[in-house]
Amino acid sequence: MINEVYLALLQEKRFAELSRELIEQKEADIAEFIDELNSTDALLVYRLLPKNLASEVFAFLDIDRQTDISSLVSEAELKALIEQLNFDDKIDLIEEIPAYVVEKILKNASITERKLINQFLNYPEDSAGSLMTIEFVDLKQDMTLKAAMERVRLIGKGKETIYTCYVTDSMRILEGIISLKDLVLGQPDKLVGDMMETNVISVSTHDDQEIIASEFMKYDFISMPVVDGENRLVGIITIDDVVDIIEEETTEDFQKMAAIIPTDDEYMEASPFALAKRRIFWLAILMFSAVITEFITSANVHITGEFVILVSLMPMLMSTGGNAGAQASTLVIRAITLGEIHFKNVATVIFKEMRVGLMLGVTLGILNFIRLYIMGKPVKIAMVIGLTLIGTTTMAALLGGTLPILAKKLKLDPAIMANPLITTITDATTLIIFFLISTLILL
Amino acid sequence: MINEVYLALLQEKRFAELSRELIEQKEADIAEFIDELNSTDALLVYRLLPKNLASEVFAFLDIDRQTDISSLVSEAELKALIEQLNFDDKIDLIEEIPAYVVEKILKNASITERKLINQFLNYPEDSAGSLMTIEFVDLKQDMTLKAAMERVRLIGKGKETIYTCYVTDSMRILEGIISLKDLVLGQPDKLVGDMMETNVISVSTHDDQEIIASEFMKYDFISMPVVDGENRLVGIITIDDVVDIIEEETTEDFQKMAAIIPTDDEYMEASPFALAKRRIFWLAILMFSAVITEFITSANVHITGEFVILVSLMPMLMSTGGNAGAQASTLVIRAITLGEIHFKNVATVIFKEMRVGLMLGVTLGILNFIRLYIMGKPVKIAMVIGLTLIGTTTMAALLGGTLPILAKKLKLDPAIMANPLITTITDATTLIIFFLISTLILL
Repeated sequence: MINEVYLALLQEKRFAELSRELIEQKEADIAEFIDELNSTDALLVYRLLPKNLASEVFAFLDIDRQTDISSLVSEAELKALIEQLNFDDKIDLIEEIPAYVVEKILKNASITERKLINQFLNYPEDSAGSLMTIEFVDLKQDMTLKAAMERVRLIGKGKETIYTCYVTDSMRILEGIISLKDLVLGQPDKLVGDMMETNVISVSTHDDQEIIASEFMKYDFISMPVVDGENRLVGIITIDDVVDIIEEETTEDFQKMAAIIPTDDEYMEASPFALAKRRIFWLAILMFSAVITEFITSANVHITGEFVILVSLMPMLMSTGGNAGAQASTLVIRAITLGEIHFKNVATVIFKEMRVGLMLGVTLGILNFIRLYIMGKPVKIAMVIGLTLIGTTTMAALLGGTLPILAKKLKLDPAIMANPLITTITDATTLIIFFLISTLILL
Repeated sequence: MINEVYLALLQEKRFAELSRELIEQKEADIAEFIDELNSTDALLVYRLLPKNLASEVFAFLDIDRQTDISSLVSEAELKALIEQLNFDDKIDLIEEIPAYVVEKILKNASITERKLINQFLNYPEDSAGSLMTIEFVDLKQDMTLKAAMERVRLIGKGKETIYTCYVTDSMRILEGIISLKDLVLGQPDKLVGDMMETNVISVSTHDDQEIIASEFMKYDFISMPVVDGENRLVGIITIDDVVDIIEEETTEDFQKMAAIIPTDDEYMEASPFALAKRRIFWLAILMFSAVITEFITSANVHITGEFVILVSLMPMLMSTGGNAGAQASTLVIRAITLGEIHFKNVATVIFKEMRVGLMLGVTLGILNFIRLYIMGKPVKIAMVIGLTLIGTTTMAALLGGTLPILAKKLKLDPAIMANPLITTITDATTLIIFFLISTLILL
């Protein structure tokens, strides 16, 4: 809406006005506008911003835009931009930009920072180590709350959060945490060691982001400490990064469930070839697994040859079976992701899906029997279809509910049991049930 | 893992030991254990906890467990439990529990609180009004930072967050916000009015939770003010609630995309009948829409009658088309949700999916041509299948990519264009393309 106005100003080259309009906006909104432009326009608009605002907007830009801008600005400017970023965002950027720009950055960094940056670049992608920031406030047990507050005031400025402070011993072993709330509200002469929470939940540098996100959700944290193998505090992770992780993991789940090889690339940025590459693998696998339906159908030409009407009903039966299976598997996969269903619940799920499937199947079977009867089809055909729907829907619900749990038990990702694979499996079972019932009733 | 140990202690009725073990744990972990038990055991274990710990654990329990416990404890105990909850969690609980328990609660509340509770119960479900808490720190412009800190110390204790403070005028109109970080790190004699951020992003009481979540993600907030129609500050929403909202909305998206009527009921808690009710609607609609495939197939019995092998290849063609369509629609629906694709991008998406679909179709077509040729099928049949796969995959990618955008434009939820509906649509187009190409090549 408002972006249309900016876009018009940009196209009409009314730069002074555009600049005046943008200055009034929030950094995140300006960044959103710039993210949507092409590279040239983006750089142009970015140049219209006053220097201070520009470097604040920089932190909100897409990593792609940040990369563009980093490659084009002067060394001095780059230094200023990089300084504006939090340490974890700095690492993200360095991982993306071309090597010659990284060199420019490292040349400008202090020796300590250079060492740190190199260390961070060695953590596995999506691990706590690569997500954490080293900008936290550390306190000692023997400080009074008053002294602690003074330390917060002294070193708090550049820290990503000061709302949770970390208590360590002289070896940097994590001993406890204390919130700024407790520091502010507590009696100034009390000791940090007496007021701190010692039962601390932490993650280790190599933990995956999925684990981190679930811990945050479970405990309602706003930040979490990251420790190394010796329980030494090496960094912290804050909630704003976790919200991004949740979005990313969700996107990957959606993709996996649609038989796409997951990435967090943006759709609009990806080339058609890159998109095709991520889709062809499962598409080909599933196509070849469908060969089993060929065998089943071929083996039953004597029935379909005699009763040609059956052929026209096959697509409806298969799609209903597929949908019933996909419903069950989606519910169960999601419940597994949220930690609601475990392997020990498999019997409950089987029994539940059997009853659900029967209810659905009987309803659909009766509805279709009536429809075919009204349309003047032979009663025996209507019976075959009605009974097949009961059998196939029940079987699909059962398979859709159970296979994701089994996949999980076999240490596979339950999401592979989503729609496409379940549909391939139910297609085959639907045809088997269909031809079995046809043979019994019609031949 | 650890829960197995507790479970064993519970079954062997070694209550004293169990109690000792539990006391050592985090509140959230104890709550998780209790959530997994049946009602009777849950209440029993809950009773084993010391009073103070029990009321803290209460706040972490499932709303269902909270309801159970509320109905069973004495009036005095209930009062203590309710007091432990934040105001927004209190409202959640009151919305769930039976009327006679609500009465008990209201009887124990002060007149002001009773009025407030009634007011909150009138906000639409999932609106900012029903999610917000009224426990925030408000400041005035003319306070010094020192005076502001004193006020935080004075009234901060019971507040859900003190990390963002809200500056209002005498009419409670929201004038700005200031973070505790700024209060702590700033010079004590500066004025709040000079230091506060005036460009404040707020939501209004009737805004939906989906909007709230996206604002939080965009701006990296840890809390956000809620204002009424006259811009008066009425409450705040904190990030921990937003993380829950994101989970809830994601679950609903997954369900919608699998043609299930969405709720946030837990799978394990829902009765088979309740589950069936949420699935039957779309299953029946989709089943009846599949009637179109019946007509298409019936109209082509002269081809399938002459070349029976075609019947056995139908399932494979339809499932491949369905999968290709589902891949495209999943990617596009997700990109719409994340605000990456808008209606203005429709031409780009069409052009992109056409190219992706062609690449996929040509690959699959060639693979299948070779397979059928090797298996000794007639070359003409292999050609029909190869060409059909090219046509059907391209068409499916195009439809899957475009229809969600059109749905959005028509103010429908793009998620309805997910797997099941796309599959039904691609089933029909696949058959049309298949019979068209068969007629051209074989007859």
